[in-house]
Amino acid sequence: MSRTLIVAGAQTGPIAPDESRRHVVGRLIELLRAAHARGAKLVVFPELVLTTFFPRYWMEDQAEIDAWFESEMPNAATMPLFDEAVRLGMGFTLGYAELVREGGRTRHFNTSILVDAHGKIIGRYRKVHLPGHSDNLGDVPYQHLEKKYFEPGDLGFPVWRAFDANLGMAICNDRRWPETYRVMGLQDVEVVMLGYNTPLRGPLPRQYDHLADFHNKLSMQAGAYQNSCYVVGVAKGGLEDNCDLLAGSIICAPSGEIIAQAMTAGDEVITAALDLDLCRINKEAVFNFAAHRRIEHYGLISSRTGAVPPGE
Amino acid sequence: MSRTLIVAGAQTGPIAPDESRRHVVGRLIELLRAAHARGAKLVVFPELVLTTFFPRYWMEDQAEIDAWFESEMPNAATMPLFDEAVRLGMGFTLGYAELVREGGRTRHFNTSILVDAHGKIIGRYRKVHLPGHSDNLGDVPYQHLEKKYFEPGDLGFPVWRAFDANLGMAICNDRRWPETYRVMGLQDVEVVMLGYNTPLRGPLPRQYDHLADFHNKLSMQAGAYQNSCYVVGVAKGGLEDNCDLLAGSIICAPSGEIIAQAMTAGDEVITAALDLDLCRINKEAVFNFAAHRRIEHYGLISSRTGAVPPGE
Repeated sequence: MSRTLIVAGAQTGPIAPDESRRHVVGRLIELLRAAHARGAKLVVFPELVLTTFFPRYWMEDQAEIDAWFESEMPNAATMPLFDEAVRLGMGFTLGYAELVREGGRTRHFNTSILVDAHGKIIGRYRKVHLPGHSDNLGDVPYQHLEKKYFEPGDLGFPVWRAFDANLGMAICNDRRWPETYRVMGLQDVEVVMLGYNTPLRGPLPRQYDHLADFHNKLSMQAGAYQNSCYVVGVAKGGLEDNCDLLAGSIICAPSGEIIAQAMTAGDEVITAALDLDLCRINKEAVFNFAAHRRIEHYGLISSRTGAVPPGE
Repeated sequence: MSRTLIVAGAQTGPIAPDESRRHVVGRLIELLRAAHARGAKLVVFPELVLTTFFPRYWMEDQAEIDAWFESEMPNAATMPLFDEAVRLGMGFTLGYAELVREGGRTRHFNTSILVDAHGKIIGRYRKVHLPGHSDNLGDVPYQHLEKKYFEPGDLGFPVWRAFDANLGMAICNDRRWPETYRVMGLQDVEVVMLGYNTPLRGPLPRQYDHLADFHNKLSMQAGAYQNSCYVVGVAKGGLEDNCDLLAGSIICAPSGEIIAQAMTAGDEVITAALDLDLCRINKEAVFNFAAHRRIEHYGLISSRTGAVPPGE
């Protein structure tokens, strides 16, 4: 009997700087209901979806910074989303800024949680590959200060057995790194769920800004193919406080093919019925890791951080 | 001053089982001259290019097997290619079956060499990711016995400084594995040169045979983008002893874009003028490894060979 999981990607349009979490959660609930109407059991929401993408702002006051974070989850603002999902019998992933007291200090992470159909948080991922910078670029249209406001994730790339599937999570820039998918592939992942906020233009002019959509798809399609898993990539899109965000949410099959794709840069649900057994085809053939991988030659990947030219 | 290297991919059409090495070398010399006429300084030839793709045949007699291998390089058959390249002031890579006495035993590798403009072999790569099987499938149109006839390569993925560039090599199935490109990326590779022989259909029916061209391009484009390097992928194409081989040779830019592509499944030269400084753009930004990689979370990649599901 084939295992089929209907998933939804719930893309959102822009979130204004002054838009309240309660208002955002109302939008997410609408998307959740639309996904339910299309048979979805599991909904993927974008990265940092409860507020505008605040790492574009230079801030120095820690209280002002911390106001963008959630110190508990669920909380008063998000509880209605949890309640509605339980009522509908649906699970979801949610991206938000996590503030946590651990080991006697306050820590800040760019986090995604996996919530089961009973409203229970059963998985937590903290973004490993933080893009951008930590210094003040000054007179630019917007900045990208993830390296200032977040610590790199400390939980690795776990895979959970839930919804009768092997599920993993990643966030935004993680999707460009083959290591992200491979560490989960080595845990037999079948569905990678990831949200993103990707400015179409950087703070300073960049050579490849015009290729943002191509690079987005290339990264996720390659990750899906090379690990024989589904990838559900879900954007926040549109013009958010004068920053144009890439939309282009897609669902990729284990073949690397795109099987669902958003048409707008606004609030929009895409769905696909994932035949999880399709993952086995290449996991047992061209990407049978046990038969073909040669770890004796991969040492540099986990022992060397930066590139070193030959002879140096 | 920008560094520009004009490279050629010298695709070949099929090579008949009874076609002599001397005859094949004559074809390679024609391709070399065509590449020279288009300004190329470095030519990439396909995998195992001196003979038909012999791993499709089940053989048990070791002398019969060894007859497909080269026990010295250059040898009488290939010397004219080396001589002509020296005369034209060109370098090249060449794929062939290597038989070597090492450590008191006879060893067999699927090898590619890098030859400088003086005819000197300055680099050697032995294919790490051997596809196919080692058992006899019996009554099938053809087999894929690389795991029977070759040992996995023992030289890793070296990068050489030559032609004023950082050069690496890979062979065929290696191109589907992100580890291949990443190990070279960590050595600051700027041009990955690879040849391939890819049957359009496997010995047995496969789900994804119709996607062979898509997977070929996806793998090389992702490898180029994610390591900000050029990839020169060169096929043996066409109908070879009733086995239809994927052509589709391409040159990918560090952006992941395809900048040259073969039009035929026969002998054909493609070229591109590689601006090597373009590699620096993403090597110093989104793929600045030193700034963004988090090796503390990559351990599984080099410590675990096969996939293990969660909870097992």
